[in-house]
Amino acid sequence: MIRPGQASYTYYKKYGRYYDWAGAGRASGRETVARVAGGAVAKLILDSMGIDVIAYITEIRGIKASPVTYETARANYRKNEINCPDLEAAPKMMEELRKVKAAGDSCGGVVEIVARGVPAGLGEPVFDKLSATIAHAMLSIGGVKGIEFGCGFEHARMTGSESNDTPYFDEESGRIRFRTNHAGGLLGGISNGEDIRVRVAVKPTPTILKSQETADISKSENTSHVFASRSDPTICTRIYPVCEAMMRIVLVDALYMAEGYRSITSAVDPEWEGL
Amino acid sequence: MIRPGQASYTYYKKYGRYYDWAGAGRASGRETVARVAGGAVAKLILDSMGIDVIAYITEIRGIKASPVTYETARANYRKNEINCPDLEAAPKMMEELRKVKAAGDSCGGVVEIVARGVPAGLGEPVFDKLSATIAHAMLSIGGVKGIEFGCGFEHARMTGSESNDTPYFDEESGRIRFRTNHAGGLLGGISNGEDIRVRVAVKPTPTILKSQETADISKSENTSHVFASRSDPTICTRIYPVCEAMMRIVLVDALYMAEGYRSITSAVDPEWEGL
Amino acid sequence: MIRPGQASYTYYKKYGRYYDWAGAGRASGRETVARVAGGAVAKLILDSMGIDVIAYITEIRGIKASPVTYETARANYRKNEINCPDLEAAPKMMEELRKVKAAGDSCGGVVEIVARGVPAGLGEPVFDKLSATIAHAMLSIGGVKGIEFGCGFEHARMTGSESNDTPYFDEESGRIRFRTNHAGGLLGGISNGEDIRVRVAVKPTPTILKSQETADISKSENTSHVFASRSDPTICTRIYPVCEAMMRIVLVDALYMAEGYRSITSAVDPEWEGL
Amino acid sequence: MIRPGQASYTYYKKYGRYYDWAGAGRASGRETVARVAGGAVAKLILDSMGIDVIAYITEIRGIKASPVTYETARANYRKNEINCPDLEAAPKMMEELRKVKAAGDSCGGVVEIVARGVPAGLGEPVFDKLSATIAHAMLSIGGVKGIEFGCGFEHARMTGSESNDTPYFDEESGRIRFRTNHAGGLLGGISNGEDIRVRVAVKPTPTILKSQETADISKSENTSHVFASRSDPTICTRIYPVCEAMMRIVLVDALYMAEGYRSITSAVDPEWEGL
Repeated sequence: MIRPGQASYTYYKKYGRYYDWAGAGRASGRETVARVAGGAVAKLILDSMGIDVIAYITEIRGIKASPVTYETARANYRKNEINCPDLEAAPKMMEELRKVKAAGDSCGGVVEIVARGVPAGLGEPVFDKLSATIAHAMLSIGGVKGIEFGCGFEHARMTGSESNDTPYFDEESGRIRFRTNHAGGLLGGISNGEDIRVRVAVKPTPTILKSQETADISKSENTSHVFASRSDPTICTRIYPVCEAMMRIVLVDALYMAEGYRSITSAVDPEWEGL
Repeated sequence: MIRPGQASYTYYKKYGRYYDWAGAGRASGRETVARVAGGAVAKLILDSMGIDVIAYITEIRGIKASPVTYETARANYRKNEINCPDLEAAPKMMEELRKVKAAGDSCGGVVEIVARGVPAGLGEPVFDKLSATIAHAMLSIGGVKGIEFGCGFEHARMTGSESNDTPYFDEESGRIRFRTNHAGGLLGGISNGEDIRVRVAVKPTPTILKSQETADISKSENTSHVFASRSDPTICTRIYPVCEAMMRIVLVDALYMAEGYRSITSAVDPEWEGL
Repeated sequence: MIRPGQASYTYYKKYGRYYDWAGAGRASGRETVARVAGGAVAKLILDSMGIDVIAYITEIRGIKASPVTYETARANYRKNEINCPDLEAAPKMMEELRKVKAAGDSCGGVVEIVARGVPAGLGEPVFDKLSATIAHAMLSIGGVKGIEFGCGFEHARMTGSESNDTPYFDEESGRIRFRTNHAGGLLGGISNGEDIRVRVAVKPTPTILKSQETADISKSENTSHVFASRSDPTICTRIYPVCEAMMRIVLVDALYMAEGYRSITSAVDPEWEGL
Repeated sequence: MIRPGQASYTYYKKYGRYYDWAGAGRASGRETVARVAGGAVAKLILDSMGIDVIAYITEIRGIKASPVTYETARANYRKNEINCPDLEAAPKMMEELRKVKAAGDSCGGVVEIVARGVPAGLGEPVFDKLSATIAHAMLSIGGVKGIEFGCGFEHARMTGSESNDTPYFDEESGRIRFRTNHAGGLLGGISNGEDIRVRVAVKPTPTILKSQETADISKSENTSHVFASRSDPTICTRIYPVCEAMMRIVLVDALYMAEGYRSITSAVDPEWEGL
């Protein structure tokens, strides 16, 4: 019988009788442990370079956190079980999760990832823009159904004069900065020195405790079934550390490439001034 | 002087004095001509396999097209200048574009891409899920700031019992189908045989005819400037064929891999039944 | 102190104080266990397709095996400790190894790899020729210092009329075959249906029991040292299964790609006739 | 009719009726123009870093140049039409080429490539050793049938005490150097700071002016044919600049990666000492 919303059906179609039905098989989120381990190594490198990556929940079943600055998110995001930096929204999300769980159901949400301290100039032109490699990394996580950078889909409602971030010369840092960050830290897919700010859509846990209509492949007939005895009310709480890890891994890769280019070009041409 | 919203700043930071200031330099959308050419070759292959890919505009500056079926989109999307299959929304979008243009401004929108006839089983497990490679391809297009599959960010407002697509045995086709397509044709990042349905967020054209505040790098001071004598009111109308091409290219790559696997595994193990 | 002939020096230069001095560190041949495991999976697939890959030793410190046909190699290569299909040369090689070992020294040799049953048409044009991916795979094995296909370096002594393999229509198999195989089964880097025949140069085990001159990095001075209490007289006997595994892995990758192309192109164009 | 020794047969098997019979089709060496162009850009970078790459002919149809130092090769390799730095062997090679040409035949040879000034530490462990990526690059050139590093296949005749290059502390440069370079500048597949020295086997031009036996696919019968009205007596003279270009491209890629790693690790850990 096909489990609605699960990868089991597509993996079965792909792998035929080599498919592993047990516990989501090779589609199981268990594989993400290796991503988190890789992210921990990447964190050691990024920490020393003053690059900080945090991920937290900003929406659970339509209950939205107020927009938070990096500073607020940093200070608050570990203060509750739901890893939500808006301390007023968090208990409402928890309450909603309890209701959903009591009903034997599950729900989706949004995870936000912020990277502060990323130098300008990361990412390659054309196909391997940093936006493209970050999107690749995030959409490779099971349960993720969308990604947006900065204002993301809100751009569709804006004019150019509204969305363009105004550059200015910042006396304090002695470098160019931007008065707003609608772009989410990326212009032309390359980092501009502002926070990289990404939001990721997470679908509800497909495993629920309710009876669901489905089809029985072996009998070619339709039926209904309760598939589980336990289920997580949301996978957002499990996915945010994976998003954090993947962002770190992508950034370290991009840093190595950009730094190799910068270091060699500077050596070759002392008058060159990049990065 | 830094052009607000343009890739020129990040390319300058990346390439130093090798940066090309003229006409957006190597960040120019002119490079997409090669993508469209590649997509045309991919189309020849997909056509013969009965796989159809279409892309069209569904939102311009907050004016949204009503949701359309593939059949309606197919029939209507070439009927107006704005390539919008909702024939009532299209003139409103055109009117809005005229207003925006008259004001010397620009605006963003949303492009939707649908692929019909894609067999189940495309995409690799873990890192190269089809969702990941499609996201990589779309976010590699300049001006794209987000992507969502099926319900995408709407998943954050849903429960599992709402979002799970119900599988059923379809007498007519003799195969499993799904009563809804909230998943956008992908489960666990692998195609499930339903339409692959993707929406892409496009930012407003950064070049506008209004005076904008900015910074002059050479003088380390802030100033304002009008940067252009012409501008497109939106880049959505230029981006949708590129999205169409990139979707086709990604699908052909995935088809070759999946078909090689299927063909060889079938030869090796006649009782195996995949794809 | 730098161990002569070892990767330890280059790994130290690359990894600085993160370098692992013990037992060859990350340059250790221990990593090849994963390659052999991967090759075992590839073998299951190749076996079912009638593709056989064997690797054996054809030279040890200048003692050369007579050229052997695939059939002879297949029949004999497991008949002695040294995995040499020339049953007269094998005991001479063993005797030489005993002498070398008694002297506290080591020696190099040549491993030959033959793949029978590979269909014509594997490999990509230009950069990913099958010859290129096989060379990449073999030269990624520690201790390998060269590779040649078919006549290899002997080509440098031949004329075109000598080296060109004559094609003929083979009544028995109903297909084109070649009267000789100087090309080693590859034309333009793409398989031609004959045996793929590769020879790989293996350097002597760098660890020997003799005193060797070397330098002490910490003191910036030259010295001499005996580095080991045990050593293998040759690494050829350990490398041939790794070569076998790598050939299998490369062939399965190429088969998937070629078969995906063939299967889809045949479906698209029934009059097309490839592979 | 199948052209003996040509890629035409394998390309036909791969591409079926989409195969281009004219002038070697897509297997033509004409594609190498793009490699040489890329190599010219790489040369600009390497020049500024004091890395010099040269390629020259050391063997033509069994006539071997005496071994030359880098200095001699550099001084002499442009002094004759055949690009051979051994000024005594060169006229003999030319004479042999004239004979071969007069006979309507062709011949093979060996191209040597030397890279001086490459820092220690280039190349990745395990799969992307510098030896592996150089081999991949060289074997991707049409007509190349083998590669060896340093002593290459001669290693098969040596003992460890003969082949191990003795490291010593060099007062003049203040760094570790090696008294010999049997390893060809690579230990464990990673550069050791000595000259990278590679030899490449080139097969005879397959196009000759003599009648050759072959098969006619369309009639499934054997026949003989003279295929050409002109032919190059060797392709060595066309291949050496391509080898030079490919070596440069591989080195620049490896330099960017190594330098990004070095630069970032140094910043992260001031006590680290690599490269």
